[in-house]
Amino acid sequence: MSIKELDSSYMETEIVNLLDWISQYGKDHKGGISRLLYTEEWVETQNSLLELLREKGFEAYQDEVGNTFGRLEGTTYKDETILTGSHIDTVVNGGKFDGQLGIIGGIIAMEYLRSIYGEPLRNIEVVSIAEEEGSRFPYTFWGSRNIIGNVSREDVKDLKDVKCISFVDTMHNAGFDFKDAKDQGRNDIKAFIELHVEQGGVLEIEGKSIGIVEHIVGQRRFTIEVVGESNHAGTTPMKYRKDSLHGSTKMIQQILDRSIEYGEPLVATIGSMKLVPNTVNVVPGKTIFSLDVRHICEEMLVKFTEDIENIVREVSNKMDLKTSIEMYMSCKPSAMDSELVQIIEEQCKNKGLNYKLMYSGAGHDAQIFTKRYPTALIFVPSHKGISHNPDEFTKTKDLVEGINALIETLYYLAYK
Amino acid sequence: MSIKELDSSYMETEIVNLLDWISQYGKDHKGGISRLLYTEEWVETQNSLLELLREKGFEAYQDEVGNTFGRLEGTTYKDETILTGSHIDTVVNGGKFDGQLGIIGGIIAMEYLRSIYGEPLRNIEVVSIAEEEGSRFPYTFWGSRNIIGNVSREDVKDLKDVKCISFVDTMHNAGFDFKDAKDQGRNDIKAFIELHVEQGGVLEIEGKSIGIVEHIVGQRRFTIEVVGESNHAGTTPMKYRKDSLHGSTKMIQQILDRSIEYGEPLVATIGSMKLVPNTVNVVPGKTIFSLDVRHICEEMLVKFTEDIENIVREVSNKMDLKTSIEMYMSCKPSAMDSELVQIIEEQCKNKGLNYKLMYSGAGHDAQIFTKRYPTALIFVPSHKGISHNPDEFTKTKDLVEGINALIETLYYLAYK
Repeated sequence: MSIKELDSSYMETEIVNLLDWISQYGKDHKGGISRLLYTEEWVETQNSLLELLREKGFEAYQDEVGNTFGRLEGTTYKDETILTGSHIDTVVNGGKFDGQLGIIGGIIAMEYLRSIYGEPLRNIEVVSIAEEEGSRFPYTFWGSRNIIGNVSREDVKDLKDVKCISFVDTMHNAGFDFKDAKDQGRNDIKAFIELHVEQGGVLEIEGKSIGIVEHIVGQRRFTIEVVGESNHAGTTPMKYRKDSLHGSTKMIQQILDRSIEYGEPLVATIGSMKLVPNTVNVVPGKTIFSLDVRHICEEMLVKFTEDIENIVREVSNKMDLKTSIEMYMSCKPSAMDSELVQIIEEQCKNKGLNYKLMYSGAGHDAQIFTKRYPTALIFVPSHKGISHNPDEFTKTKDLVEGINALIETLYYLAYK
Repeated sequence: MSIKELDSSYMETEIVNLLDWISQYGKDHKGGISRLLYTEEWVETQNSLLELLREKGFEAYQDEVGNTFGRLEGTTYKDETILTGSHIDTVVNGGKFDGQLGIIGGIIAMEYLRSIYGEPLRNIEVVSIAEEEGSRFPYTFWGSRNIIGNVSREDVKDLKDVKCISFVDTMHNAGFDFKDAKDQGRNDIKAFIELHVEQGGVLEIEGKSIGIVEHIVGQRRFTIEVVGESNHAGTTPMKYRKDSLHGSTKMIQQILDRSIEYGEPLVATIGSMKLVPNTVNVVPGKTIFSLDVRHICEEMLVKFTEDIENIVREVSNKMDLKTSIEMYMSCKPSAMDSELVQIIEEQCKNKGLNYKLMYSGAGHDAQIFTKRYPTALIFVPSHKGISHNPDEFTKTKDLVEGINALIETLYYLAYK
């Protein structure tokens, strides 16, 4: 059985109003939102949300670290909770959809379900997660890690932000603390569903309103340094050169061409590059470039890493260069729960929602939750793929479709 | 007829002593020489040279701009002068061979010739040229341009150095001035022979002591800007990317491979490169790189420029990028006088000197003189091609060979 037809104009008004309302907190001077963990703006936002949830008649509370919850109590399975939500923090000068859409969407969904169906069998909670971006401190997923009980207290105790303010001090000043060391995270969560913007252009290009994520990619980052010889651009014949850039371009071209041969979902990006000495009339003696590789399958990341090593070694030997490859980041892929994916897909089909199954090339709280709970991630389009920017935009029509998918899924999980 | 065997140990001592002597003027704190146009150190150097030339019994004088000459008067062809020398200015923190070797070598040659053969038929002059490097003011070849009577007074009247000191003021303060506007340069010069270090590694690699330069390369410099789209490295599948770096590496590789196909003496260098935004996890939306191309033949520069344009256009179209090419410098090749080249080669052969015919990939005063007078350029090796650096080094044995070639040539031109 599917729930009643939603009044889409009500939904549109509600989503626009609530996104506008929450976007006033942390509004910055550049037309975006800057809401970094445990800042004044951040505290104000979480407290305002707490108040809003109470006004809307939900039980609302904050945990030790400041994750803010609104709860619709279940009638039957009282120790089983279906959780939805996303993160409340932003990057510096972020947009109005990244993160907070999942919270606002969750509130609207919960409110809607209550108004139509009353109390659920299982508890439904919406969470405004404390932190995901790592924009203030060099640490990510602080909020979700605390919920699943997988916090590295050692990792954060010496953390400082760019102004040299300590993580622990700023948390205490905001009125929060570490969880009790014995805390093992929540046991009652039976599913976590995150609604988020895609932050990529695939849905828009392919004309879809909803993406059901099956995998969040794993990621490896490398620094490749190619050393040749700096020489005078005029007085050094080509045959006597050891041009680090000539070698690097051969490597880069082969790596990118190879990544295209692999096909989706592999992506490889050389985003950063430095020549030494970087002077018009000197053959560059050294070229350093970054390489970011992502795939939903760890084996493919391992295989592609071997390919990279072979390409680099081969070009390097052939051109008599000295090359080093350093892998400075390796993050495994995360699979979403396949049953949940199937459930969401069915709901979309039943409601005639315009969806596609896809993978996420960016990291999300869902990849933390999936370590412990059945987890799903629902995307709505990002116009031109723009994100982490005040120009972030998703059509209201697509927001409504996304919330509808969330409503259907929460209904399926909590009311049946 | 060849001149008597030279006493090479005398020559070795003389060249080492005189290079050490002149290197004390403008010695900097980083173990090099910094002797920029019209500075105190520069004035002291030119005046000390004037004195040295007089002490050695040569008629010595300075022209209006400070070019400093020593003269051995000819007995027969009094209005015909054979000129040798090079520039006295250095780059910041330069070495002890670039420029001043040609002056010291000229003095030794002239002294030697006088001691063995007495007065020549034609005048021989050595010149310590005021300026070649353009290290202080954004203007090069000030000294040689004045000698040939090809000065652009308009060009220098508003010039300022990095401290905002005006060219004209500093020249006046140093006691020099513009030449009279009517001056058309010297008419008496029948040949100019410059001895200089190679500033490249060819002679050393090929085990030669002397390079007889046939051509100084022409040079074209370009800025190539490739515009694609900046995208998230994770959320943008390869097929939806417009990666400016991927396109640029294809262009660079084809340009460099093509330059190798052209063969010597073409050289092409991409020395400088910039990615935008230059961030590990963003597909670079813009890549800007420099291109420096040199060849001894203008037609080949034109042809290679067309090739570059075709390569860039083709890759750009294929990869749906927007590309612009700006040629911001175009400097024509200079041929040395073929008769003089032949004369020098014959002298080298007669004396069993270890020479090769070659081209110069760097600019020299000779390229200014060749516009008006039969001109030749003789190279001695630069260890590892190092130049514009305190580590500049040429073996004394090679310096002696170079001066011997100069002596033989001056003898042929002035005594016969």
